[in-house]
Amino acid sequence: MERIYIKELKEQIGKEIKIAGWVDVRRDHGKLIFVDLRDATGKVQMVILPNHKEVHELAQKIRSEWVIEVVGKVNNRPEKLINKNELLGAIEVEVLELKVLGQAKELPFELGGEINIDTHLDYLPLTLRDKKHRAIFKVQAEIVRAFRDFYTNEGFVEFQAPKLIGDDAEGGANSFDVTYFKHTAHLAQSPQLYKQIMVGVFERVFTVGNVYRAEKHSTTRHLNEYTSLDIEMGFIKDHHDVMAIENKFFIYLEKELRKNCTEEFAYLKVEIPEVPKEMPKMTLREAQKLITKETGKDCTKEPDLEPEHERWLCDYAAKKFGSDFIFITNFPTAKRPFYTYRDEKDPTYTKGFDLLFRGVEITTGAQRIHDYDALVASLKDKGLNPERFSYYLQTFKYGMPPHGGFGMGLERLTAKLLGIENVKEATLFPRDLNRIDLLLSK
Amino acid sequence: MERIYIKELKEQIGKEIKIAGWVDVRRDHGKLIFVDLRDATGKVQMVILPNHKEVHELAQKIRSEWVIEVVGKVNNRPEKLINKNELLGAIEVEVLELKVLGQAKELPFELGGEINIDTHLDYLPLTLRDKKHRAIFKVQAEIVRAFRDFYTNEGFVEFQAPKLIGDDAEGGANSFDVTYFKHTAHLAQSPQLYKQIMVGVFERVFTVGNVYRAEKHSTTRHLNEYTSLDIEMGFIKDHHDVMAIENKFFIYLEKELRKNCTEEFAYLKVEIPEVPKEMPKMTLREAQKLITKETGKDCTKEPDLEPEHERWLCDYAAKKFGSDFIFITNFPTAKRPFYTYRDEKDPTYTKGFDLLFRGVEITTGAQRIHDYDALVASLKDKGLNPERFSYYLQTFKYGMPPHGGFGMGLERLTAKLLGIENVKEATLFPRDLNRIDLLLSK
Repeated sequence: MERIYIKELKEQIGKEIKIAGWVDVRRDHGKLIFVDLRDATGKVQMVILPNHKEVHELAQKIRSEWVIEVVGKVNNRPEKLINKNELLGAIEVEVLELKVLGQAKELPFELGGEINIDTHLDYLPLTLRDKKHRAIFKVQAEIVRAFRDFYTNEGFVEFQAPKLIGDDAEGGANSFDVTYFKHTAHLAQSPQLYKQIMVGVFERVFTVGNVYRAEKHSTTRHLNEYTSLDIEMGFIKDHHDVMAIENKFFIYLEKELRKNCTEEFAYLKVEIPEVPKEMPKMTLREAQKLITKETGKDCTKEPDLEPEHERWLCDYAAKKFGSDFIFITNFPTAKRPFYTYRDEKDPTYTKGFDLLFRGVEITTGAQRIHDYDALVASLKDKGLNPERFSYYLQTFKYGMPPHGGFGMGLERLTAKLLGIENVKEATLFPRDLNRIDLLLSK
Repeated sequence: MERIYIKELKEQIGKEIKIAGWVDVRRDHGKLIFVDLRDATGKVQMVILPNHKEVHELAQKIRSEWVIEVVGKVNNRPEKLINKNELLGAIEVEVLELKVLGQAKELPFELGGEINIDTHLDYLPLTLRDKKHRAIFKVQAEIVRAFRDFYTNEGFVEFQAPKLIGDDAEGGANSFDVTYFKHTAHLAQSPQLYKQIMVGVFERVFTVGNVYRAEKHSTTRHLNEYTSLDIEMGFIKDHHDVMAIENKFFIYLEKELRKNCTEEFAYLKVEIPEVPKEMPKMTLREAQKLITKETGKDCTKEPDLEPEHERWLCDYAAKKFGSDFIFITNFPTAKRPFYTYRDEKDPTYTKGFDLLFRGVEITTGAQRIHDYDALVASLKDKGLNPERFSYYLQTFKYGMPPHGGFGMGLERLTAKLLGIENVKEATLFPRDLNRIDLLLSK
């Protein structure tokens, strides 16, 4: 008999089937033993009757997280035993045959209960199995799928960006050193330079991959390894074209989440955000004037948004425009990387933008400099040596169109979408100052 | 006017359109100037007539790889000027307006000509733009897309595997060291241990990402960073289930390549392989007996296949079964990693397999050990300390089904599919002993 998935049981009432999975809970009522079985698709209650003697004996031994295979009969539950909170709460499987595929030792704690973040991380191979975390990472997989599908359909070509690099894209500190034979290499902080090289090849590209920041902080916001969703496109008019295609992606994402993840959002008790056709936009200086006017505290000279200002602007966008999203544009040149395009009207400002969502920045993007001489000058302005960037600079030496793009951290987006406070809970195997899987101090 | 893509020109005969792209070639015939324009979708010949004076003057300045935007009229070419070798060889664009979007310096060599591999790599931001390399990496993107689509449709969930790890999955040398604050971390050689952990969460998972081997070789086969396509699935009977779902993937890949990449394969003059419904399979010992019988040289005691034997077996499979693919199974336990499941009939052999394709191994896979005690024993057998694997071992301590999977190098597969001798030509930004973008000795 072929194994079927638990979600398929509904169509099998009265029939004999084979299912397999993990024991979620076992309740021994003496004569009757109940076992909730969990597989990739759902959970079902099974009952072992005393008249199936061998099965009943074996069922006394099994415990939570044992892996078993069962042949059984699918029955409707009596009216008063129907559990309306469970998807399959109206049916029950009467176990006829039982086979143990994998035993488990006693669990250190009950799965799905309240545990602190460190215990959660210490026991990830176990704790990721609870319904909450399966829901989180199902949604995360869906975000990545939607991202790729959307940009592929828009004519973008995927490429694999290297993570092991000779020089640091952002030209800064915070990069990890790798012993590379007789040399020192680094872990990439972003695929930025490679994205731009690839615009020269395919015009429109995207890449999904790990990036690294040697942040010496261990907070609910910091990660030393995270996943970046990145696009870059040529032949744009300016940064507004980039914001437009990001806006369109979020509309697509909303549609896909409503199609494929309603169960996960319902379980996590979060609303899928409604994405406006046109997200509100304002320049940094406009935003700061507004904040100053409304709060009375002058922030119009600050070069960037403070976290409290990001939250304020998101509240404002929600109230004023009914939008969870707001673009802030034209950050000062001094605060943006060397490759950021400067506004012709005032070159002390850039054609760069941030996308804020539910209180924080989730995306940084911009039009980029495409003229070779302007780029070399910009490197020098930033105190960087163009020689070190000679490989990358070839791209511009040999002809580039106006182009731009953005990068977005997958884990932060997942956390914000799902109302998760600590980004580490939205990261499968988070690395921080103190931890790579296990605590490093151990 | 909105820019359209060059491939759309066929439907615009007689109309005024706007296109943009890179100058492929410019031919100055005095009165007439011809410019081949290239964008992401194709190439078209444009003509600048002397009566458009300003345009004609500007056109005298532009050179290869300049980026331009053109408003022009799409005309049919006169019968005798039709070029049947070009997709758009029957049409021509008469340039009415011309705008330079990006200038280029003089090229160091003509794009698309014969250059040696080191020059190719030194100038990648330029050389990747030639038609050959765009074809190679278009096919590579399509392999990745097909891989994800196929496994998503088969109920697999994608996850992001960490690359920065505390201990080495394969328990061996060849790993790069990373300075991780006060500690030493490593770059992952494979996502193996994380794949198995994730089977406990989602039953069926896949991941696409970079992996690292500190190979001290610089050959046409070695890469220090490559992209691994990885799957792992629970509730299998044995390794044959894994081979079956890999076989099915290649059938899907063939279909997708025929749908989306015929132009690229035609340009590269390679045939898309016909994937058999059931790829031939034999055990290592059967294969060695066959080789010994046919070649007269006894190899039946060797623990693995020599490169020449891989080639011999592929030739044999092609002749005997008309298959470019052949599975070799049941490698000795001594030659396989600690997590490989041992054959019940003879535990000195494993339920592991290789997939050979056109002369080389492109996949390594296996059923894995799922019993905690057996896995601990196997670690000890290999001289490894189970303590170091305590994090990973939780997976098995808390219940795992029989499972297995495989890993496949994207660049090697691309190279073999496209008949490329040097795997570095099928790697966007190859890293080796001597090179990270630029030569390290410089």
